[in-house]
Amino acid sequence: MQRSKFMKKTAIIAEYNPFHNGHLYQAKTARIETDADAMIAIMSAQFTQRGEPAAFDKWSRAAAAVKTGAIDLVIELPTCYGVQRADRFASAAVSIAEQIGCQTLSFGSESGDADAIRRAAHAGIEATPAYHDALQHALKAGKSSAKASSEAFAALYPTFDLTLPNNILAYHYAKAARTISLHTVKRLGAGYHDTGVSDVMSATGVRAHYLETGSVRAVPEATRALFQQTSMAHWSLYWPVLQFKLRTTPKSELEQLVGIDASLSPRLIEAGLASTFEQAMGGLLTRRYTRTAIQRALVSVLIHWKRDELPERFDEVPYVRPLAFNAIGRSVLKDIKKTVPLVSKYQPDLAFEARVTEAYRLPLGNRSLLEHMQTPQFIDSK
Amino acid sequence: MQRSKFMKKTAIIAEYNPFHNGHLYQAKTARIETDADAMIAIMSAQFTQRGEPAAFDKWSRAAAAVKTGAIDLVIELPTCYGVQRADRFASAAVSIAEQIGCQTLSFGSESGDADAIRRAAHAGIEATPAYHDALQHALKAGKSSAKASSEAFAALYPTFDLTLPNNILAYHYAKAARTISLHTVKRLGAGYHDTGVSDVMSATGVRAHYLETGSVRAVPEATRALFQQTSMAHWSLYWPVLQFKLRTTPKSELEQLVGIDASLSPRLIEAGLASTFEQAMGGLLTRRYTRTAIQRALVSVLIHWKRDELPERFDEVPYVRPLAFNAIGRSVLKDIKKTVPLVSKYQPDLAFEARVTEAYRLPLGNRSLLEHMQTPQFIDSK
Repeated sequence: MQRSKFMKKTAIIAEYNPFHNGHLYQAKTARIETDADAMIAIMSAQFTQRGEPAAFDKWSRAAAAVKTGAIDLVIELPTCYGVQRADRFASAAVSIAEQIGCQTLSFGSESGDADAIRRAAHAGIEATPAYHDALQHALKAGKSSAKASSEAFAALYPTFDLTLPNNILAYHYAKAARTISLHTVKRLGAGYHDTGVSDVMSATGVRAHYLETGSVRAVPEATRALFQQTSMAHWSLYWPVLQFKLRTTPKSELEQLVGIDASLSPRLIEAGLASTFEQAMGGLLTRRYTRTAIQRALVSVLIHWKRDELPERFDEVPYVRPLAFNAIGRSVLKDIKKTVPLVSKYQPDLAFEARVTEAYRLPLGNRSLLEHMQTPQFIDSK
Repeated sequence: MQRSKFMKKTAIIAEYNPFHNGHLYQAKTARIETDADAMIAIMSAQFTQRGEPAAFDKWSRAAAAVKTGAIDLVIELPTCYGVQRADRFASAAVSIAEQIGCQTLSFGSESGDADAIRRAAHAGIEATPAYHDALQHALKAGKSSAKASSEAFAALYPTFDLTLPNNILAYHYAKAARTISLHTVKRLGAGYHDTGVSDVMSATGVRAHYLETGSVRAVPEATRALFQQTSMAHWSLYWPVLQFKLRTTPKSELEQLVGIDASLSPRLIEAGLASTFEQAMGGLLTRRYTRTAIQRALVSVLIHWKRDELPERFDEVPYVRPLAFNAIGRSVLKDIKKTVPLVSKYQPDLAFEARVTEAYRLPLGNRSLLEHMQTPQFIDSK
């Protein structure tokens, strides 16, 4: 097999929550269209960017992606970069892709038009006084910072809709890209059948369908097996410990956690009186706080993420950690280990990630997945 | 009814975990022997001095004591004084008894000899160089501070055995007493039948008997009713949340909690891998750390008790808070409210106690006992 320095490597930034037919289509299409020798996913860890416990643990999700054969290597996006607003998430993930020498970053988009995204990202809108004024105006009107910034952007650049979640990520990928080329795969809507992938749903749709009906749709066999082996994680299962922490952590201590200030802390303590997670969320949502911001704050509470544990910068990640790989992926790892700080075994750098894994697994009654006992999983899929 | 300033008030310092026949005998005997018009208990709150969740919440335990008619008023010993080593516990409780004008403090002892206790307390043993040397020697040999100090004391004052738990408390009551007289009631052993109280067990015995057999022995009717109404609290029920906190709280944060230093914190984190509370305790006990010290540290973790929340001093308590009373108790309260800071309704001083109550009740699945909704309970027992 040829060595990776001569291999064309294409990166995908993903959550695979869980890996579904749309992901399969995206990875296969990207491999063909970018003529990639290796497809590498940079994947969020136990909690997602929007502040939710992932449906399955990171090792299982990574292994499922590699088992399909569409992905050759999965690299962890550490939690402190992954459970962050879109710009930080994108910046850290792109920096990993560039660090390991990927020539291309491929992502899904509604339009399939990478140039339009690149133009929007480089129009310099956010540096203009007009943008600044519009942003301040919207914030003063009590809007959340996410909504305020996307509306300010829309007023000045109406042709690119930053209120769509996928567009926000694409926009920030394009802004973060230094050496990497951009490639986009037009997303399949539900019911799109002309691709050899017969059933497509969003990851949210897959999870909701499972919770409502108990049956699994629109996923490859490797993901279906996860649903059969383990119970799917979701916020409700964390409510007893989360409620306990909300009601018993000193207010001043809550305010030292990432994403929680003195205006949010009393509302979190009050929300702890709810009977269920959804009831608590209902009481917490306001125009000022989006569901995503609240959920990320709740992840913070769960993992007791102190502000002084935040990385100093989000445009570089100190290590590259494989979660799963096949023979092609192994060849990539062999090659990059000479130039990047590859972390395969447990080491002190991973102490924070280990704590996150405890917070993820204990409420699920899962005693088996201690971080320091895990090594990257080799899967014989290629 | 005569007003309390002319009433003879006798205090008992207790945990009532739960109130049993021995407590009944002690209170009745003390009332007669001290010729008391009012019997007042100063009782620990949701967690005991030895670092355990009390079998029943403080309101229920206080009400049960008053329902028997043997106690007229129960005052809370706040958690930050109650979950403390014996000298601090005793000092704070005695200060409450003196603050509310009790003439006499009555306590159980093996000997029934108050003079012997007073002599031991005032012999000044702990101030001698010989005591200091013996203490340091025992500590260097790796003994716990409790064991080291009681052994050092025994070497210099062999006639009073400080290794008996009741003697330790009696000794510290005598040391803390400034204006109050001491009275002691000889404790009834199990099987002592010559008192009109036919069945006597220790509180530990009552709880253990219930856990083993499911039946309740050696308690008055009011306590029996508690066992029938609610499930008894014990550490095992707190293991899921405690384990979660041990495994997910940053090490540096654990070390900011009361009773936890840098040598204990890694052992606590490790203990979080146990499957049960008792298994965790088994791994934590050493010659250096007694069960009591460990349990108090675990209460600290549960209530997230930061060192900066400790009181500055232990020989005065800033408020007097009734938990339950009868007509005699009410008369006492009416009188003392002119001279002491009586707290009956919820107020910010109680914020810490409210957090403790959340930590106590949530793992029990008990949604009904929010601190700020409670007021002292009047019971028509006298």
